[in-house]
Amino acid sequence: MTTTVDMLGARLREVLGEKATTDPDRMGSYTRDQSLLTTAGVPAALVKATSVDDVAATMTVAHELSIPVVTRGAGTGLAGAANALDGCIVLSVAGMNRILDIDAAARTATVEPGVINGDLAEAARAQGLWYVPDPGSRAISSIGGNLATNAGGICCAKYGVTGDHVAALTAVLADGRVIRTGAKTRKNVAGLDLTHLLVGSEGTLAVIVEATMRLRTAPTAATTVVAFFDSAEKAIEAVLAVAAVAEPCQLELMDAVTIDAVNRFTRMGLDESAGAMLLIQCDGRSAVQEAADCAAACTRVGATEVFHTDDPEEGDAFTAARRMALPALEAMGTVLLDDVAVPVPALPRMLERIQDAAERHSVTIGTFGHAADGNLHPTIVFDAGELGAQDRARGAFDDIVHAALELDGTISGEHGIGVLKAPYMSDMIGSVERELMLSVKAAFDPRNILNPGRGI
Amino acid sequence: MTTTVDMLGARLREVLGEKATTDPDRMGSYTRDQSLLTTAGVPAALVKATSVDDVAATMTVAHELSIPVVTRGAGTGLAGAANALDGCIVLSVAGMNRILDIDAAARTATVEPGVINGDLAEAARAQGLWYVPDPGSRAISSIGGNLATNAGGICCAKYGVTGDHVAALTAVLADGRVIRTGAKTRKNVAGLDLTHLLVGSEGTLAVIVEATMRLRTAPTAATTVVAFFDSAEKAIEAVLAVAAVAEPCQLELMDAVTIDAVNRFTRMGLDESAGAMLLIQCDGRSAVQEAADCAAACTRVGATEVFHTDDPEEGDAFTAARRMALPALEAMGTVLLDDVAVPVPALPRMLERIQDAAERHSVTIGTFGHAADGNLHPTIVFDAGELGAQDRARGAFDDIVHAALELDGTISGEHGIGVLKAPYMSDMIGSVERELMLSVKAAFDPRNILNPGRGI
Ligand SMILES: Cc1cc2nc3c(=O)[nH]c(=O)nc-3n(C[C@H](O)[C@H](O)[C@H](O)COP(=O)(O)OP(=O)(O)OC[C@H]3O[C@@H](n4cnc5c(N)ncnc54)[C@H](O)[C@@H]3O)c2cc1C
Ligand SMILES: Cc1cc2nc3c(=O)[nH]c(=O)nc-3n(C[C@H](O)[C@H](O)[C@H](O)COP(=O)(O)OP(=O)(O)OC[C@H]3O[C@@H](n4cnc5c(N)ncnc54)[C@H](O)[C@@H]3O)c2cc1C
Repeated sequence: MTTTVDMLGARLREVLGEKATTDPDRMGSYTRDQSLLTTAGVPAALVKATSVDDVAATMTVAHELSIPVVTRGAGTGLAGAANALDGCIVLSVAGMNRILDIDAAARTATVEPGVINGDLAEAARAQGLWYVPDPGSRAISSIGGNLATNAGGICCAKYGVTGDHVAALTAVLADGRVIRTGAKTRKNVAGLDLTHLLVGSEGTLAVIVEATMRLRTAPTAATTVVAFFDSAEKAIEAVLAVAAVAEPCQLELMDAVTIDAVNRFTRMGLDESAGAMLLIQCDGRSAVQEAADCAAACTRVGATEVFHTDDPEEGDAFTAARRMALPALEAMGTVLLDDVAVPVPALPRMLERIQDAAERHSVTIGTFGHAADGNLHPTIVFDAGELGAQDRARGAFDDIVHAALELDGTISGEHGIGVLKAPYMSDMIGSVERELMLSVKAAFDPRNILNPGRGI
Repeated sequence: MTTTVDMLGARLREVLGEKATTDPDRMGSYTRDQSLLTTAGVPAALVKATSVDDVAATMTVAHELSIPVVTRGAGTGLAGAANALDGCIVLSVAGMNRILDIDAAARTATVEPGVINGDLAEAARAQGLWYVPDPGSRAISSIGGNLATNAGGICCAKYGVTGDHVAALTAVLADGRVIRTGAKTRKNVAGLDLTHLLVGSEGTLAVIVEATMRLRTAPTAATTVVAFFDSAEKAIEAVLAVAAVAEPCQLELMDAVTIDAVNRFTRMGLDESAGAMLLIQCDGRSAVQEAADCAAACTRVGATEVFHTDDPEEGDAFTAARRMALPALEAMGTVLLDDVAVPVPALPRMLERIQDAAERHSVTIGTFGHAADGNLHPTIVFDAGELGAQDRARGAFDDIVHAALELDGTISGEHGIGVLKAPYMSDMIGSVERELMLSVKAAFDPRNILNPGRGI
């Protein structure tokens, strides 16, 4: 072992100099993402790439020596997909963080993969443009990571996920060769769509080293509707009623547990007697009129209270409350965050199944999420110090994932498979499909060195 | 040869009965799509599948005997992608044309691949829903073909292409095994995105036998703006100005040659002194206001005439005129239809290059297309009876494709590669990328029997 590591270190330093290290003290903060209860191995080396050449050099060495490589963006992932593997090279692209070009006329931005989502959004805004995808982690996660996980966000209700906003990619293959995929044009059907194959591939196919993302014109002011309901079922009835009359740019759900947690955490004074709350925003020219129709739809299905505001500051306060859902639940104990999606009409049954799981395993579960997309984040809260609590949390997690599958849903709506969801892949994906995915991976990565065992 | 055909025929009839034939008389109308100047081979057999089992049985036999298979939808393709190969099985899925399910609550439709686009649109409309993708061929092309070519249409300016509306697929692999991809949910990141890999793959990876497509709520009435300009350059200036203030659901360009042709064909009385015309439609709640802003933008950049109507019938008349562009040019002679896309700001240079090509090769070229997406259909009109005319047409075609490449564009925006654009693939796609695409194909189709030599 030591000799391999030594040789690897020597080879990497030879081509990458100071950018490579095998010093455990310098690698410590690069071994895990932000997921809980996921395993992580001990890396053999860390490379902090600052250029495409650095990435290519790293892959060339890794390929030569058949060393696994875990690509790392900002390390904010929630599925353990960027956790180190034993003996791997952690290839950090966080230092490749230049915005290379914003083409205002073509409405595209070309960036290095380590650019932070919020920095791109800011640079676009400065030119009157809008980079749309807005994961909760937008202030801390990278565009490369967003692409590799196909990150969602609050706006995807109307505007789609990260993969819906990519035009072209540059990527380094497992053997160090560089490819370009897609085109700068809005439409392109030449050859196989490698661009969207890389999207969501969690570092298993290639290392994304440059991305051309599409921008929109600046967003308009949003109008906000907040509605409270006796039960989560009623709230979902309202989601369907709203979707039939409007296309909100935000349609978020918080259940009773989450409302309580947010109140305690923020002193927002949300209605604690409510069974659930919807936070709706409409944008565009007819935002006000659309929001009014959303409010009416909520009232029609029996909302107990409906609040409606054009004041952007008030609206932002509610959005901030929704964005506090996770930190608020985290303040209650240790959390195990889930991420499942079901067809919207199946949400009431999904929410029931989540409550069943909470009772069966004696844990608290706060559920919030992107209701318009049927994408929920049931968040299991437990006391890590309590004997058996972690197993009970896992038991509830397991029940929730299986319930989503039974309801024609998916084991992950946006956070990815990584380590956390890997055990469920064979329930989600048939054996022929899985075999096919692995053959596709082998076409990209014949030595199986890119994040092996992850994502697929 | 005869013995192979006999054996193939016998094997196919054994498993498929009357659905299989090797009779040349019955195969005649299944050997070509609607492209001109593309080569087509002589098929050995035709299978008219009516079920997934038929498709699986066909592929099992083809795989066993290593016989190439050309999947055929409605045969309306314009790139020769469904043209027969010598000795192949033409596998027609046109008979698999049942709409299996429309789920109004989840807003999805599940269909067999041979369902005609317009029939799905109609069935959705009957439930107050909208199947959005609207290629010019919507009355005659199949959903399977639309998926396999990633067909565009007029609405994609705002709503995206066919691939943007697919949730899940069922497909038969080259060896007859069946796979399911995607999920019914709006978001799903489990495993590699095989769904979008199949989209646009032109029958080279698998045979699509079922598709779950997303629907939207019923469209609102559209407001129409028609604007005439002295030059195509001015019209494109207007395209950029319009895109900065509105998001039309239709933003179509016709150049002077096309305007003349449409006038002669339809007696519409469009302004023949104009250098170009834009046809703009806005939908949604603020259609009227948005359209007014589009009209103002056209005026601002110097339109010679701007016409504005809320009357849906008048609007439809203009849309019909635009949809007559191709038939009108076809009425002038033999046409060779091209399909290229460039970034929108490069459109003026692209249009110049098209005129250069027309002059250099002494042909008439009428250009129309989806201006918002930078996707043009330069249509080369020539007299097929005239000596050398076909070569001159090909020369112009060649110049146009290369001009698109030089302007950071693509060799095909929506019609696909097929036979027609295959010679340009090596200019569009680098050798490493091409090799990778072929390895991915090999992962799906190790014996290279699915539309070999096409699409990639
Ligand atoms: C507070 C918080 C809120 C969050 N909210 C959301 C949310 O709303 N929606 C959502 O979808 N996720 C959310 N996440 C999860 C996470 O932020 C996203 O998955 C994000 O896209 C990860 O980006 P990253 O740069 O941190 O990637 P990392 O965690 O570093 O890596 C994630 C995966 O991508 C791969 N990868 C990273 N960069 C590259 C590259 N350049 N090339 C190839 N592969 C690469 C890694 O190998 C790994 O498999 C949240 C996380 C936190 C902590
Ligand atoms: C008048 C006219 C207008 C047109 N307008 C447009 C337009 O606006 N936009 C546009 O994009 N195209 C347009 N086209 C081109 C054509 O209609 C589209 O490409 C359409 O998607 C082809 O569908 P099809 O069913 O006819 O497919 P086919 O021509 O039968 O096949 C096309 C390709 O798809 C493959 N294929 C078909 N079915 C399947 C399946 N089930 N599984 C796997 N592979 C399959 C075939 O092998 C072939 O490679 C137009 C054509 C005409 C004649």
